[in-house]
Amino acid sequence: MSVTSAAADPTGGRPVIPTRGTLRPLGLGEARITGGAWSHRQRVNGGATLDHGRSWMDKMGWTGNFTAVEQGRGSEERRGREFADSEVYKLVEAMSWEVGRSADRIRDREIGELTAMLVAAQAPDGYLNTAFGRPGQRPRYSDLASGHELYCTGHLVQAAVARTRTSGPDDLLGVARRAADQVCETFGPEGMWGICGHPEIEPALVELARLTGEQRYLDQASLFVQRRGYRTLPLHPFGWSYFSDDIPVREAEVLRGHAVRSLYLTAGAVDVAVETGDRELLDAVISQFDRTLARRTYLTGGMGSRHMDEAFGDDFVLPSDRAYSETCASVAAVMVAWRLLLATGEPRYGDLIERILYNVLATAISDDGTSFFYAHTLHQRTPTEDLPPDREQLGFGGGPRAPWFEVSCCLGNIGRTLASLSTYLATANERGLQLHQYADAEVGTRLADGRRVAVRMATRYPDDGTVSVRVTETDGGPWTIALRVPRWAGGAVLVDGDQRRPAAPGTVEVTRDFSVGDEIRLQLPVRPRWTFPDPRIDAVRGCVAVERGPVVLCVESVDQPVPDLDLVRVDPSAEPREAGDGATVAGWFDQPAESGWPYDESAPQAGETTRAALRLVPYHRWARRGPSTMRVWLPLG
Amino acid sequence: MSVTSAAADPTGGRPVIPTRGTLRPLGLGEARITGGAWSHRQRVNGGATLDHGRSWMDKMGWTGNFTAVEQGRGSEERRGREFADSEVYKLVEAMSWEVGRSADRIRDREIGELTAMLVAAQAPDGYLNTAFGRPGQRPRYSDLASGHELYCTGHLVQAAVARTRTSGPDDLLGVARRAADQVCETFGPEGMWGICGHPEIEPALVELARLTGEQRYLDQASLFVQRRGYRTLPLHPFGWSYFSDDIPVREAEVLRGHAVRSLYLTAGAVDVAVETGDRELLDAVISQFDRTLARRTYLTGGMGSRHMDEAFGDDFVLPSDRAYSETCASVAAVMVAWRLLLATGEPRYGDLIERILYNVLATAISDDGTSFFYAHTLHQRTPTEDLPPDREQLGFGGGPRAPWFEVSCCLGNIGRTLASLSTYLATANERGLQLHQYADAEVGTRLADGRRVAVRMATRYPDDGTVSVRVTETDGGPWTIALRVPRWAGGAVLVDGDQRRPAAPGTVEVTRDFSVGDEIRLQLPVRPRWTFPDPRIDAVRGCVAVERGPVVLCVESVDQPVPDLDLVRVDPSAEPREAGDGATVAGWFDQPAESGWPYDESAPQAGETTRAALRLVPYHRWARRGPSTMRVWLPLG
Repeated sequence: MSVTSAAADPTGGRPVIPTRGTLRPLGLGEARITGGAWSHRQRVNGGATLDHGRSWMDKMGWTGNFTAVEQGRGSEERRGREFADSEVYKLVEAMSWEVGRSADRIRDREIGELTAMLVAAQAPDGYLNTAFGRPGQRPRYSDLASGHELYCTGHLVQAAVARTRTSGPDDLLGVARRAADQVCETFGPEGMWGICGHPEIEPALVELARLTGEQRYLDQASLFVQRRGYRTLPLHPFGWSYFSDDIPVREAEVLRGHAVRSLYLTAGAVDVAVETGDRELLDAVISQFDRTLARRTYLTGGMGSRHMDEAFGDDFVLPSDRAYSETCASVAAVMVAWRLLLATGEPRYGDLIERILYNVLATAISDDGTSFFYAHTLHQRTPTEDLPPDREQLGFGGGPRAPWFEVSCCLGNIGRTLASLSTYLATANERGLQLHQYADAEVGTRLADGRRVAVRMATRYPDDGTVSVRVTETDGGPWTIALRVPRWAGGAVLVDGDQRRPAAPGTVEVTRDFSVGDEIRLQLPVRPRWTFPDPRIDAVRGCVAVERGPVVLCVESVDQPVPDLDLVRVDPSAEPREAGDGATVAGWFDQPAESGWPYDESAPQAGETTRAALRLVPYHRWARRGPSTMRVWLPLG
Repeated sequence: MSVTSAAADPTGGRPVIPTRGTLRPLGLGEARITGGAWSHRQRVNGGATLDHGRSWMDKMGWTGNFTAVEQGRGSEERRGREFADSEVYKLVEAMSWEVGRSADRIRDREIGELTAMLVAAQAPDGYLNTAFGRPGQRPRYSDLASGHELYCTGHLVQAAVARTRTSGPDDLLGVARRAADQVCETFGPEGMWGICGHPEIEPALVELARLTGEQRYLDQASLFVQRRGYRTLPLHPFGWSYFSDDIPVREAEVLRGHAVRSLYLTAGAVDVAVETGDRELLDAVISQFDRTLARRTYLTGGMGSRHMDEAFGDDFVLPSDRAYSETCASVAAVMVAWRLLLATGEPRYGDLIERILYNVLATAISDDGTSFFYAHTLHQRTPTEDLPPDREQLGFGGGPRAPWFEVSCCLGNIGRTLASLSTYLATANERGLQLHQYADAEVGTRLADGRRVAVRMATRYPDDGTVSVRVTETDGGPWTIALRVPRWAGGAVLVDGDQRRPAAPGTVEVTRDFSVGDEIRLQLPVRPRWTFPDPRIDAVRGCVAVERGPVVLCVESVDQPVPDLDLVRVDPSAEPREAGDGATVAGWFDQPAESGWPYDESAPQAGETTRAALRLVPYHRWARRGPSTMRVWLPLG
């Protein structure tokens, strides 16, 4: 890797730019969402959500922590948890993508102000963390297990990468480079043999290496990945797996422990493997992630089933009613899936991203963009009410959407993902364009041979299954438009002019000498369908779910004639029926006799029964109509 | 309540002596276990377990904390968590019951030494807690939510009650009374309006009132019960329900929040209700507890399904693989059930005690009495190994039996329950004796009219279902022997001489003019049987369990031809077959095809199948034969 001076990304900015791989990502300037639900969500995010984040971070004193450091004020003034700095950085990252997306001048100025604050707070040697190292605080790097210092630095670096790629180098890149240099000096081959309890510095340093061409950042990330798994962090009550420090990365068989930590580490390991050409490491990580998909992932794409330690459970431990499925774990899973999609071109990673977008990210945020689910239950048994707009939720975890959390990591993660969402729509390779996600969008790039190609996607997907792709630029000669056919979409059809051909799940391609105005249409069979779980998932044995396209549906009590969803039963012999963007299914409510002890020698008899057409709505729409109960998995009668 | 001087209990000592109620408890001198498994467990407990507890408490510095206070040594020397004092008290309580049971002279001297240590450590005004109030420590009662000061005092009081009732008043009673007086002065009607985050002082103060006749202790307990539920403790991240401070005791509908806290409070509320004749409070608590039994209790009798907050889940949230079911919650549930049995005479409370004894307490402790399950999973998916004998387990919660825990509450709770176990076997009323639990035992008392009556129970229960009850003392005139017929024991028969009559679940009685040597026999149909769950328990839908008498059975991997218990399937159309104290059932192992994503449009097809006769063993015997996986609930094929 040769040292080059960092510059704005000519594509408009991309979160991940591998130097090799199967697919090449497109930037904000090459892929733009022009309409539909995601466009609306991007606008809400760019306005209300980022404003909300900024005002709460000011109110909670998290931005003020930097000012206090600059002014040398007492460490006793520091506010928030040890990772509060990272929330400010993630907000800056989200703002940076937003400026790249919408050229928002006010937001641009805001980044400048926040950057000036960081510049002023940074120590002369590059160290920047408001929780450690000042008089009255613990010494720098004295608590690698829980201190989150390198984690915070990682988010600082990611913010600077986003800023530089979208707007060109400025002081923020300087701050990040000095901080990264300080990390490399402290933890390099000759330095302290340490890793951070919470991975994040690993993908950040690789991306900084990609941005700047500095080999030392890649080397340092590689060292951090190599060092993990040898139980060098102090034993945590939740075990070394909590830090993914139980097994070396290339020896593990599946993701485990704290889901966000594990997934951030995995993202970094993919980056290191790709940049160093380490096929063994890449294969190890692919195998772990694929096993995680097959055994430790919710129908929604959510990961991490345990509240206590925010961890993956054992294989097939996927309880609906105590699902944790943290928002941030889904953001992290998108990070991993995107990197693996770029590295391998395998459409299953696009499937996962789609599933997460429609069923976790779309669920996580309120319509007005100012309250958030931290965790995503698939079965709400007692009605919850949203917290009032001025109320912080203590700790983390379950409960309703809240305007703020003591551990408020979801806002920044949602914000940066939504602002950069269009970059996940499509990729290019030497043959043409690959469309991975479907939305009203403009996608275009210059192919390796210099030809400009572009298409306009038009669709009401996922409400409707037809995706129109019209060629808007082409430069002569054949090229390829490839479209992802989701795993669920058996019976899909590709229409190219007069031609109709089946499009099996995976990838369907059209290669020809396109003319501007040419249209191809992918017809995906979006209709409600039953979904059955693997029989090893004990928590949903004897249940079915209903999905419609990529959207998981649910029953919510506010739509049902009997409010107690414990009593719902369905018979999957009849197909679910279309009902707007949801469905209806024939079902009933079965009220068992009460006997005082819930275990009996005879199989339970049907009790008092109320037949009903059960209305299902998209899971992402639940908890938007007042207090309710909800369930995704419906017991068979 | 009139003030009397406390004296040894002439019955030999009982944990709970209500001044009114349906049934009168018997003391250690009136009910003695003479043989069988529980007798063996009592001996192991009285020897190895109590020695183990003492040596670890010395090693961890928890006894030393008191010496440090006495010697005025620096508070920085204090060791252990804020509730460490309580563990020493529970150990003294267990030792006291053990001295009552076995007249162990060495243990008696040990109690004397520990008492002298407490006497020396107590402040002149009666306050006694090693974690608060000294220079360098937080002020007394400055952290009622988490400080556990009143909780510790409660255990001190219970230790003194046990000591006094079994051996007569000594210095320990003086320490406890002074501490209780200090509590009454501080928190009385004119004092601080506070409650402890962890209930325990409530039942303790009632019992001290019963022991001493001091009304003020009862009044104070009553005040503490009344004060709870008004959200006066600071909001905990787990909610006010964590402390049962969310809803006033007499308004709640079900037990909720931290299970041990909730159950200790419930025990205290029953005590207050009984002593003050508050029928409304008693009915409220009965209703809450009965609903908890019907909706929030595991097949084993275990309570509390959530690891994170050690809490009851919502109704019917009873996951097997993430069962928490803390040992101490089961001890606390026995406390409640026993109090309700005495108050109401309802046999369902005897059923629960039996279920807990055979399936939680018998499971909790290793054969040698020196390692313990903190939590009781009903489905172990990955093999665990016991910790080495010198290794403490950090925190609390899951994992294998461990010799010690950072939060080591189970040893003392098991110890005090086992040492006093014979007092839970039988009760008396004006008509005669009631036998609630079956074991080789001698049971006798003097009836209200002065007649001596006694019986000898002989049984191999629960290995065998026949319980022989032979009259060993009688004084002329008719009296009644009542026997509990467990809920599961449909088809039980009572044999009285030549007479055989059906004994329906509930209570069966024989009333006549007994002669010494008369024998009645209860024949309980102990054989393996299928048990089906309430259809609202999502976690075990489509599963059956096998029980044998009061004993829950399980499959353990070490007995099976295929080690992966995720693949087990059974067909309950054939009855389980006897196999020693376990069973065999016809089943198979079904290996599904792997597809990379565990949700599919079609119902799962049977994969590669291996038929097998599945061996089941008593759940309490699991994890005693090396690393293994285990499950109680077996999926239907």
